[in-house]
Amino acid sequence: MILITYDVSTTDSEGRRRLSRVAKTCVDYGQRVQNSVFECILDATQFRRLKYELEEIIDKDQDSLRFYNLGDNYKKKIEHIGAKSTYDMESPLIL
Amino acid sequence: MILITYDVSTTDSEGRRRLSRVAKTCVDYGQRVQNSVFECILDATQFRRLKYELEEIIDKDQDSLRFYNLGDNYKKKIEHIGAKSTYDMESPLIL
Repeated sequence: MILITYDVSTTDSEGRRRLSRVAKTCVDYGQRVQNSVFECILDATQFRRLKYELEEIIDKDQDSLRFYNLGDNYKKKIEHIGAKSTYDMESPLIL
Repeated sequence: MILITYDVSTTDSEGRRRLSRVAKTCVDYGQRVQNSVFECILDATQFRRLKYELEEIIDKDQDSLRFYNLGDNYKKKIEHIGAKSTYDMESPLIL
């Protein structure tokens, strides 16, 4: 599982547009677990494509993306406290 | 390394106060790498204490915390694209 976190500067309308495009792109690849955090089950090709798409969207001087490779046994590495997102982590991904 | 991500509802001033307190608490335990993302080198006791402190701050109906255990070999599991935070990941933690 690849965890994706991002910071997009939203001080202007261009930034807000980038933020919306980043989120929309990530939704296509995985599950939103927090506002700027996605968990994605990806093979190497899908991961490369997602990175490429996100790199095309962000402003590298202002925004940042981080990717964490949690491996296959990711479930036992995650702890959640508080409000649950309504997304179902077990639902199949259509890519 | 424990990765901490959080969503705190900031629709009211109480929420903004919680957000600020969560961030302030995390700063004591690790490195801020994005706005709501911290990387912390913690032993089991420190991790328990941090979780306890954060649980005391958040509103569990509105806010959420996620903890990801990246293990010891975390450096090769992380990829960063874009703007760099100014925090030095190698600096010692004083706990």
